[in-house]
Order: sequence, then C-alpha cells, then structure tokens
Amino acid sequence: MRYMISIEYDGTRYKGWQKQKDNIITIQGCIEEALYSLTGTNVQVFGAGRTDTGVHALNQVAHFDLQKPYPPYKVANALNFYLTKQHPYLKQDIVIKECRVVEEDFDARFSAKTRQYKYLIYNKEYPSALLQERAWWIRKTLDQEAMENACQYLIGKMDFSAFRCSECQAKNPVKTILDCHFSSSRDNILVFRIKAKSFMQHMVRNIIGTLKDVGTHKISIQNFQDIILSKDRSKAGVTAPPYGLYLEEILY
Amino acid sequence: MRYMISIEYDGTRYKGWQKQKDNIITIQGCIEEALYSLTGTNVQVFGAGRTDTGVHALNQVAHFDLQKPYPPYKVANALNFYLTKQHPYLKQDIVIKECRVVEEDFDARFSAKTRQYKYLIYNKEYPSALLQERAWWIRKTLDQEAMENACQYLIGKMDFSAFRCSECQAKNPVKTILDCHFSSSRDNILVFRIKAKSFMQHMVRNIIGTLKDVGTHKISIQNFQDIILSKDRSKAGVTAPPYGLYLEEILY
Repeated sequence: MRYMISIEYDGTRYKGWQKQKDNIITIQGCIEEALYSLTGTNVQVFGAGRTDTGVHALNQVAHFDLQKPYPPYKVANALNFYLTKQHPYLKQDIVIKECRVVEEDFDARFSAKTRQYKYLIYNKEYPSALLQERAWWIRKTLDQEAMENACQYLIGKMDFSAFRCSECQAKNPVKTILDCHFSSSRDNILVFRIKAKSFMQHMVRNIIGTLKDVGTHKISIQNFQDIILSKDRSKAGVTAPPYGLYLEEILY
Repeated sequence: MRYMISIEYDGTRYKGWQKQKDNIITIQGCIEEALYSLTGTNVQVFGAGRTDTGVHALNQVAHFDLQKPYPPYKVANALNFYLTKQHPYLKQDIVIKECRVVEEDFDARFSAKTRQYKYLIYNKEYPSALLQERAWWIRKTLDQEAMENACQYLIGKMDFSAFRCSECQAKNPVKTILDCHFSSSRDNILVFRIKAKSFMQHMVRNIIGTLKDVGTHKISIQNFQDIILSKDRSKAGVTAPPYGLYLEEILY
C-alpha cells in the first residue's frame, strides 16, 4: 500500500533531505528510521524536493510503500512519536502534518506538477534574534521595487545556466518559471515566492543572491536581464544562505 | 551619561532577563558582560521587564550609565559585536536594535507607562517544526470567539490574585489592563496581545492558560469571569509555557 506524507521541518541542524552515509543526519534518513521503528523493516522514502543543508520545508511531500497496511492516521501518529523520540536535536524538528493512502502510480517526485519555494529576507540595520536561521539578514536598505521589477524577467521558459551551480547534475538547464514575486513587506521582512515544475540545485538561492544586487543597486534591472541571457554563472550574484529558503507547496 | 537600549532576544537558551549567580546565563548578565568588554568597568543594566526563562522579547528596553561618553551608534555596534563574540549558544540570540542618549532621570523600569506582551498559540492537529519554542501548540480546536469574548472581562482595574503565582513578590495584586484581544488568526496561529502599566510574575501566562480552558469549552465565559472575581489562583488554569510569550512594546 502506498502512502503520501506531507512534512514540515526546521532544516537548521540537518544535512539536507537526501540520505547520505550512516553517520550523517538527514531528513530522509530520520523518517526512514522512524518507519523502521514502526514496521521493523527497511522502507525507502521518496521525496518531492531534495532540499539542501539548512533549508526548511513547510510542506515537503514524500511517498513510501508498506507491506502491512496501517490506517493513515496511525502512520502519522507513529512517525511523529518516533521522530520525537529519536530526536538528535530539538523535539519537533520534523513533523508529519498529513498522511494519506494514494494510488500505486503516485510518485512524490515525478507526479509533481509544480513546486513553490519561499525566501525570507530581513532588511534592517541590525539582525533579528528571533529570525536567526529563518531569514537572510541584509543590512543595506533594499530597493524592493527594483527587485520586484527585475524578477519579472525570470518568468517563462528559458536557459537558466546563469543560476546553475557547478555541481548541478541536471541534464537540461532549460526550466519554466511559472510565477515569481515579492509580497509587500511587513516589519522589514521581504517575502519572495517562486514557482516552477522543477528547479536546478541552488537555482533559487542563486537567483536571490543576484536579486539582492539589484536591490542594493550594485547592478541595474538591465544588467539582471543580461545576466540571464549570458547563461554565465560567474556573472550572477552570490548563493544566498540556505536558512532563508522554505519549500512551501507542491501541487499534483 | 545615560543610555537607553532597545533589545530583541530569543529567550530559549537563557534563564530569563535578571542576572543571577555567576554560572547562570541570563540576558542582563550577557549585556553587562558585553558592556564590560567595551568599557573595562562594571556597568549595571536596568531592564523594563524581568522576563522569565524561555520568554522572548521583540523590544525589551534597558538603561545604563557610562563614565566615558561614546556615540550611541558605537555603543550599539560594540555591544552587538561582543554579544556575537561571547555567544554561548547561537550567534544572534541577543541583538541591540537601538541605542540613544537619554535624560539622567530616565528609568527603563520606573518611567515605563505601558508594557505590551504578545502570546502565540499554534492550533492544529500536529505541532509546527518551525514554531517550536516560538508558540504553544494546542491540538484541540479552540473556540476563538469564546476566548475573544472572555478576555474582554480582563480589561479594567481589578484584583488579579487569581492569576498571581505563589512566588510573586508584588505588594499589590490590583492591576489595570488597558487592552487585550486576539488578532484574526492566520495559518492556525492565534495572536493574543495584552497591555498594562505593569504585570505580576506569570500573570500573562496564567491568563492564557485559563483562556485556553475557555477555548476548549472546559469552562464557560461566565466561569472565566467568576475565576477573576474569586481571586483564587487554584481555580484558574495552568501556567502557559514561556516560549509562546514575547515582550513586544514598552511605551514611555
């Protein structure tokens, strides 16, 4: 029987989603351990998005198969119980928010139609104690209107090599950004959202790092457009820190 | 020369505001240490509100006197530098948001006209990973309208002995609540705000613990009113956890 779970996590203390060697703590690894505690068997978990070290998720989606059928609410309760019990750091770093039985052909990764990420920037003279590891602190006042205008040039189907990291294993740098925008900020917090069928590794963080340069007037909106067209990673900005990034919604 | 500072802190890893014995880490203690690093002398810091262990502050206010005059921005920058350097836990648990020179008769504690606290409740079936140590998770669906109606009975000048903790050293249990209300919730987060000239120890958390009982229909709005009038702590609800509480604003 195939199950789908929706997961919220604080990625601060984890080496990203994807399971690695035994002594490296990852989100996928912790959930698989909890499934082992529940079932006594090794169950492989397939996630929709492979978030990096330090990246958070409000709604990551994953699927797995269980030999013995359990009612979905029991799976959610049991996983949350074991995830709390095994907690290497804080008690509730990883929470299963929902569990459902799905069709055998549902695939958390390949059935996903869109993925939406959110990025938080804290723009004030001094950092925020309560937003540490939750938002990127930028001291210099950002021109939000310029950033909003620049990010419109990202929408559409194009070659995003300029925002591709060197270790990226994607076969094709052509992606389609369906939507991206900044929400009106409150309390000096800028909220950026971006939606696509899929992204390349570090792509969102490289985009944010370059939009920051627009916001500080290091580059113009025209420069931003030229960087996209150049397909040259070395022309784009820094990779924004992972702790401002949240996997927010995956639609099927 | 007297200085006023505004401070934001994540109280999770601190034994409250007030300085205690040498090996106990407190917010006041950390700021005094940073002032020692800056000036080479012992400087006593006077805070407006003595927040408990685990309680946060968005805007705590404090004052202190320096023998040698420094420009205020240098004081803020130096304190933030030393607070980051000496960090026992995370880098930016305590942040000086503002520093100003004030009149010699300004007293952060006694000049304060109103203090406003905020309390966050997360009301959903499963807890939130990203709000752990930031909000009180209550699983049972709360009747927010009932809580909103009940809290109106708190407004005014009255004897709040029902919400006074046993260790409270206040001479007078009569306090004047100037305002309290719930904001419309978003993403299952209830935001409660309460404002008064001053509060007794644990008073806000005891109020929240009792309002929760209204929200779960354990007690009626009439019961809530009766509890206030009874002046009997044993009739009121539990003390809500500290990590949902934020010292939000102090007006002078």
